Amino acid sequence: MSECVLFLENPTSTVVEHPMPSASSVQRSRSAWSLVLCALMLLLFTGCASVKPDPLPSWNEGSTKQAIIAFVAKVTTPGTPAFVPLPERIATFDNDGTLWAEQPFYSQGLFILERVKVLAPQHPEWRTKEPFASVLKGDVKGALAGGDKAIFELVAATSMGMSTAEFDALVRDWIATARHPRFNEPYTAMVYTPMVELLAYLRANGFKTFIVSGGGMAFMRPWTEKVYGVPPEQVVGSSGKTQFEILGGVPVIMRLADPGFIDDGPGKPVGIETHIGRRPILAFGNSDGDLQMLQWTAGGSGARFMGIVHHTDAVREWAYDTDASVGKLSPATLDQARARGWTVVDMKRDWAVVFPFQAPQAAHR
Amino acid sequence: MSECVLFLENPTSTVVEHPMPSASSVQRSRSAWSLVLCALMLLLFTGCASVKPDPLPSWNEGSTKQAIIAFVAKVTTPGTPAFVPLPERIATFDNDGTLWAEQPFYSQGLFILERVKVLAPQHPEWRTKEPFASVLKGDVKGALAGGDKAIFELVAATSMGMSTAEFDALVRDWIATARHPRFNEPYTAMVYTPMVELLAYLRANGFKTFIVSGGGMAFMRPWTEKVYGVPPEQVVGSSGKTQFEILGGVPVIMRLADPGFIDDGPGKPVGIETHIGRRPILAFGNSDGDLQMLQWTAGGSGARFMGIVHHTDAVREWAYDTDASVGKLSPATLDQARARGWTVVDMKRDWAVVFPFQAPQAAHR
Repeated sequence: MSECVLFLENPTSTVVEHPMPSASSVQRSRSAWSLVLCALMLLLFTGCASVKPDPLPSWNEGSTKQAIIAFVAKVTTPGTPAFVPLPERIATFDNDGTLWAEQPFYSQGLFILERVKVLAPQHPEWRTKEPFASVLKGDVKGALAGGDKAIFELVAATSMGMSTAEFDALVRDWIATARHPRFNEPYTAMVYTPMVELLAYLRANGFKTFIVSGGGMAFMRPWTEKVYGVPPEQVVGSSGKTQFEILGGVPVIMRLADPGFIDDGPGKPVGIETHIGRRPILAFGNSDGDLQMLQWTAGGSGARFMGIVHHTDAVREWAYDTDASVGKLSPATLDQARARGWTVVDMKRDWAVVFPFQAPQAAHR
Repeated sequence: MSECVLFLENPTSTVVEHPMPSASSVQRSRSAWSLVLCALMLLLFTGCASVKPDPLPSWNEGSTKQAIIAFVAKVTTPGTPAFVPLPERIATFDNDGTLWAEQPFYSQGLFILERVKVLAPQHPEWRTKEPFASVLKGDVKGALAGGDKAIFELVAATSMGMSTAEFDALVRDWIATARHPRFNEPYTAMVYTPMVELLAYLRANGFKTFIVSGGGMAFMRPWTEKVYGVPPEQVVGSSGKTQFEILGGVPVIMRLADPGFIDDGPGKPVGIETHIGRRPILAFGNSDGDLQMLQWTAGGSGARFMGIVHHTDAVREWAYDTDASVGKLSPATLDQARARGWTVVDMKRDWAVVFPFQAPQAAHR
């Protein structure tokens, strides 16, 4: 659309560039030019009107898509009561299960399990020490039976006690080479095309888009800019404690084996307040861990949009909610969402595409 | 400059809009137009070249100003080895003593002392309880004799145990009404004009400007956007712990009376890594508390700019460094800065203006 408008603004500007002609030929050529130009303008005008591109082509037509577009139109129309000035257009998105797949297990979990295997030769004691022993036997459930303590031990052994630069390099290497167990695609292709579109659509309308995830901040930042268009400084997540040190004259930031901030559940509004300092006007999540972020967003004054991605497509992705061990969405959360008029995205119904490597399809129910 | 260029791109575009003239008049008017246009273009061209505005008019000419402008030119010129892509143009600034005055005492300290006086009637026990008793007697030194513990008690009693919204309102009210004890100006006028210019100049060259201050994050965010053009999400500072709660159906974030993160000294690189996740290519500070931020910035690869504001102007501002109780800049830090080629701003020599309410003056030594 913008290119058409640009061209139409000055459609006749090239005419004067021709060498000086005779009087009649000027008149003839002018009439001819006028006709051509009129035809061209008409063509362009109708063309512009008819090709106005769909900002969300991967979303099927319906109430969900309409709700998103209506909200964006409402808050970006100056002079209306719901108008929101540019700096306040803050949108926050959960990552796992909202922007990319979280089944069969969180990607960061798979990264950690792989690191345990890679590091095992340097730790012969792991063969008999939990939770490592179970991981090395391929028994993830057994490893996680130790609860939060076991998870922290796995994180500490694989992701802490090194500099931020070293961890960054490990993540970059893994994300460039690892493949998803079901789809055999790189994890950066396991993103939801409609959500990537939504991020871009919001930014095109002056929103600043943030990720607010329970996942590790340092695990996301190396690739979110390329994959989602979200720069590191707009990625909020969980993080362990770090410490500035000068090692052999070189300043480094060390990742201490010390739990820090968990950006999940009630931690999400805290993370938002700490990192952004402004309440979002739009938030999207998919599980109980996003409830407080949605409540915090809903609690502000003025127009608000709260969205939940409901995983309903067992064929193209996964169908899960109440009983899921990863990404649990309990009936209480879903009931609250519906009662308060939040938008529940039915993945199967609302999305024409799920992953970028799949062919688009129309609504199929 | 850009408007001139825009106009010059298509200087003849209006010519064809006139009604159809006779052959000779076409020729005559074309020649006339050509002359007029040539003259106009020449005028515009030389005009553009000569009125190119000084981006840092409050900085006196000299090596400091030259160093800043040369650095910005270097990192923003595509195709050169020092070129830095837009997303990596991160600049971090200390606040107290770097962007605004910190004498006779940190502004936030003055805010806290005033809050103690306002709240005293509700706390009769403060009359005999330190550090409050000293504050109420006007003996700040006595109050601070209790060290970090006393400072935390003052912060907790005046700035914690309330919601983020309540604290925000207190700060907005104070910043709108309080006056500086020496200059009798609002604190938002106690900012350094040359540094505000520098922030704008960097942003005009594609930098993202951040504040990284030992001061309270929530104390700065309510006014930094208006005063510095730095939005809340680009303000990093110290913060206590907070907690999400739903009180009577309303979601709030409570400021707990619990110390959290101190964004000073070695905390500054940690704050930068946590909030930005990218190493700055330019950093500015003024005291020992900024040393590690400058070291962290200097430690990256490629072109870097490290700046220190040296308070040398007892007339227009204050002259202090080694022995200051607020904003101490020790000889070791200054020596390191000079040895490593960091830029030390001599406030008296380099700044034509200090505060916006003062008349400009040329270098006076």
